[in-house]
This record gives sequence, C-alpha cells and structure tokens, in this order.
Amino acid sequence: VITVIAGGVGAARFLRGLMAVVDPGDITAIVNVGDDVVLHGLHVSPDLDTVTYTLAGAIDPERGWGLAEESWQAMAMVRRYGGIDWFNLGDRDLGTHLYRTHRLGQGATLAEVTAEIVRSWDLALRVLPASNDPIETRVTLRDADDISQNDALPAGTEINFQEYFVKRHHAVPVSAVRFVGAEHSFPAPGVLEAIESADTVVIAPSNPLVSIAPVLAVPGVREAIVARRRNVVAVSPIIAGTALKGPADRMLTELGHEASVLGVARLYRELAATLMVDHADAANAAGIHHEGMHPVLVRSIMSTPQRAASLALATISAAHRPEPTSAPHPTVTDR
Amino acid sequence: VITVIAGGVGAARFLRGLMAVVDPGDITAIVNVGDDVVLHGLHVSPDLDTVTYTLAGAIDPERGWGLAEESWQAMAMVRRYGGIDWFNLGDRDLGTHLYRTHRLGQGATLAEVTAEIVRSWDLALRVLPASNDPIETRVTLRDADDISQNDALPAGTEINFQEYFVKRHHAVPVSAVRFVGAEHSFPAPGVLEAIESADTVVIAPSNPLVSIAPVLAVPGVREAIVARRRNVVAVSPIIAGTALKGPADRMLTELGHEASVLGVARLYRELAATLMVDHADAANAAGIHHEGMHPVLVRSIMSTPQRAASLALATISAAHRPEPTSAPHPTVTDR
Repeated sequence: VITVIAGGVGAARFLRGLMAVVDPGDITAIVNVGDDVVLHGLHVSPDLDTVTYTLAGAIDPERGWGLAEESWQAMAMVRRYGGIDWFNLGDRDLGTHLYRTHRLGQGATLAEVTAEIVRSWDLALRVLPASNDPIETRVTLRDADDISQNDALPAGTEINFQEYFVKRHHAVPVSAVRFVGAEHSFPAPGVLEAIESADTVVIAPSNPLVSIAPVLAVPGVREAIVARRRNVVAVSPIIAGTALKGPADRMLTELGHEASVLGVARLYRELAATLMVDHADAANAAGIHHEGMHPVLVRSIMSTPQRAASLALATISAAHRPEPTSAPHPTVTDR
Repeated sequence: VITVIAGGVGAARFLRGLMAVVDPGDITAIVNVGDDVVLHGLHVSPDLDTVTYTLAGAIDPERGWGLAEESWQAMAMVRRYGGIDWFNLGDRDLGTHLYRTHRLGQGATLAEVTAEIVRSWDLALRVLPASNDPIETRVTLRDADDISQNDALPAGTEINFQEYFVKRHHAVPVSAVRFVGAEHSFPAPGVLEAIESADTVVIAPSNPLVSIAPVLAVPGVREAIVARRRNVVAVSPIIAGTALKGPADRMLTELGHEASVLGVARLYRELAATLMVDHADAANAAGIHHEGMHPVLVRSIMSTPQRAASLALATISAAHRPEPTSAPHPTVTDR
C-alpha cells in the first residue's frame, strides 16, 4: 500500500509509472490544492486534473496539461469580450470545471467530487485533495512588475500563484511564498490515515516549495509524515541543479535554498529517510548522507512511461531496504 | 426613438426587423431576466443572449437559440461525469457565460456586463436587462410529474422556469407562475427613462405570461408603460389561437386566459392602445376594439428578415396614427 504526496506534472508521471508496477487499488495520491483557483466563477483544480488526466491517458502529451483532442472555442469567445484569457481553459477541460463547480455548489466536498471524477475516468487508485478547505498559494514579487502596462505592480506585491505561474510564465523572481487558509484547514478525510497506514509514503518529484509544501502546511500532515519517516522516500525534482519542468530550481535559489539535491535534502530530511536522486548527482551522495538521508541513485528522468515505472519500482524498493547503517555508500539501482 | 419590451426568440426577430427600418442607435430593448439561471456556477441569461446573438447575426438559424458553428465538447464531458446535461450549453456560448459570471463576480451589474457584450458584437442598439436584481420565474406543476424516475414530483410542486421550459420541453401543464424576487427588484438604470422618453413603446411578440410579465413585475415598469399607453403598441404572439413558438397558447389556457388575440388583448389593454394582429385574426378586430384597444391587421409571421422588417415598420407606424376614433374599423396594412 503506497501513499504519494503529489503536485502536478512530475507527480502525475511518477504515479503513472507506479500504476504500472503496483495494483492501482493499493495507491493513494494526496494532491496539492494550493494552486486551485476560481476563474470565471468556476473552481479549477490544476494539480488534481493533471493527475487524473495523466493517469487516464487523456492528458495532452505535448502541452503536458489539459486534455488531448482539445478545442478552444469558449476561450475565443472570452477573448472577444476582453475577459480573462491568460489561463487557457479548453472546451473539454471546461466540462470538468463545470461539473466540479456544480457539485461543490450542491454542497459536495472537493474530495467527493474528486472521487467522482476519478471514477468517471475508470481509475482504480484513490486520489485525495490534501484538504477540502480552500488553500491559496500566494507569492511575493521580488521586483516591480509591469506585465500589464496598465497596472504595474510594485516590488513586494503578493499575487496568486496562477498569476505568477501562468500569467507571468513563472519568469519573475519571488521573495516569499505562503499558503493562505492552510493554518485553519483540515486534512481531507482519509489523508492522515493514508499516511499512517501506508507501507511506503512517497514524496513525488514535484516542486518542494509550491507543490509539496502546501500539502505539508495542512495541519497534521507534516507530523503524520514525520512519524513515518523511516518509510518515507522522497524523489528529488532537481537533477544536476535543474528542474526538468517549472521554476523549482530558480525558486529554491530565490527563497534562500540551494538549487541542488542537497537543497532538496535539507528541505526533506525531517520527513523522509531516503532520497532518490539521479546518477547525475552521484557526487552529492555523501552530502545527502551527511544531511541524514540515505541517497539512492537512479535514472530519474521520466522521459517514457517505462522510465517512470522503473523509477517508481526503484523508489518503493528503496523504502524497504534493510536497517540503515552508518556507511555513506549510496544504493545504486539500474545504472 | 423606440423602446421594445422583449423576451427571447420572437422579440429578437422583431428587433432584427426594427433595426432594418430604424437607426439602431434609436432603439432600446428592455429584456426579460426571469428565466436567467445559474448552471454549473455560471450565470446564464437566455433572453439577453438570444437577443444579442440574433441581432449580431450569430444565432444558430436552425435551433433558434445558441450560436452558429457551435461545438459541444464541454457538455460531452459534463455528461461523462453524470452532471446536469438537460440545459445544453455550446462551447462558444459558454464563453459568454464565463465572461458574464466573471464580471458579475467582480461586482459589475448585469446591465454593465450586457452593455459590454452587446458592444463586443458591434451592435449599436441599447440592450437593458429589466433589472440588475435576481428575478426567478417559477411555475407550479398542475399534475404529478415523473420526468425523472428517481424523484417524481407531486402535483402542485413549484419548479424553476428552465426546469419546465427546457428540462420538460414545456410539455407539462402548469397551474401558476410567479416571479420570485421581482417585488423587491429595481428597474435597471435607464429602463424607466427609456419607457418615458420613447416616441413609441413596443411590447414584442413574446410570451405574455413568462416573457413580458416578469418585465412588468419589476416595480415601476408596468406603471411607466401604463402612463405611455397611447404610444404603446403590443404585437400579439398568438396567431389564430396558436403560438408560433413555445407554450404561450397552452399556458394562456392553463392559467385561465383565452388562447387567442382576445386573450392577449385582455392582458395588454391597460398597457397598450394598439394591438398588432395577424390577418388570420381579422374576425377578432371588433372584439379587440371592444376590449378598448385599436386593432391593426398585419402579416405578423416573421418567416424572413424582410417580413420582420415589414412588421416592425407597421408596428411603429401604428403608434403614430391619428387620434383614435370610436369606429370599430381596424387599420389594415400590407394586406
């Protein structure tokens, strides 16, 4: 039984690999909701949908987000009216947001709606939002910003995560991140139990600062993971100092961390006993050990479903290695 | 300067005809909002959109509602999830609702959003919602109803207008209609002034009971029209006892009126001095006169834009006929 703490694209690919090597009925994904956003009155849950669409084989393979065979008629009309068009919502994708918004309006919880959506895609794994309560990731702009000529923002302005990530293509430096609402949120039903009862808890290769951190910010979640530390394996989203996708590397630097597997180790060492890192980072193995984590070297770039499955298998195997010794020799898999 | 009290399809066709014979800048349409509905969290204004799309030449000519060249990808997804699919929203049409909902969420009034949408379609006439406040037309089922096997409704159940009109294809008898919220609503800015300052006020050929009545139910509107009675012309939506579109004829009977131009005359006689009726109803001219209205016989079926223009021209001409005499002879135009 495996529980995966998940963000969007990286986590979705990891989960797809995991589903190839573990009975999907034994997998629970606990997914970030900090980048959920209300657009045009619709509740959009980007990470939940990326996970669902990817696992259903319905994700657009080129974009990496949204649905394949998508059309953009609704957005073309929004554009005609001069509405918000920086967050592109495909017509098929809109159907998901229409359904979610309708059900939430009826009083269903986000966890209930998510379960319904996942079931509609014939997926057997369990997908849980980290919380049913609204959590909003917000970032503070380090510099003045004039993406819109009409309303330049002064340095120090705090903006919604999607305004950073999508509207500004995460191309502007940030000086702080916080998760509004998190401190008063509750874990969704099943979240703590899934962490407590799992054989292995995996922290997926997602952005530690804006994908994993908002999950950990839900009261009780971090503590539950810390309590399982021996059976927690984190997969580094940083390979040779670089994030394969997204701004994790720049964000780490901007927010005072090191953009390396060592920086990741320092963020996760209290949570996970084991850190999966790419062979490219073999030189950091001793450093990771020094931070108190057991490094496991793998091929961690999930360029194909097979690579993702291989990474997933290595990850869950790493969690069940024998009692750690003090030897600083990393485990090496599938070189 | 012409002000038209408008519902959906019939009014839209009349307005299209009017725009062919009067400077659009001199036309104001005051449109029913009683059948507005929130679906999937989106604010849908069917009559406002039918008017706008029709005048923009963008309406789907076969369906008579929604946009031409429409696709249905979002609804297909909603159906996959088992969501509400009885109210069909096309992908392009969704763009309108997304924009409207977004702007209302920002605090814009329905009148402001409507003006923005109308401008985006390059229309020069003024389109006003009857009110910025929520008004919900509800009808009472005369008989028990089992459209959904799972939740049969007992006779006397009150349901939302769209659940009657769209979900039940207006195929079930009703025993009452009311406009929830109307009594506490205010006319949208400009509505009363448009009635007071118009050379002619036209009551469009729309359903008197569920399209025109909700406009009249906004406090102040009926009184403003009554005060202009001499310059108010109503166009009968009933021709030879039949509504060309929709359930107006059956509703008239079900709610205790006569499904004829005489029934229409009795509903409108306090509001309008003149009633435009089709030549098919020539035999009722004396009866209409007896009800205190001046009957004008026209070809009132708007089967082509030319016919609509001709009806519009006859209608505004009828408003400017000489002082009425007591003679019961109807005016006859374009026989």
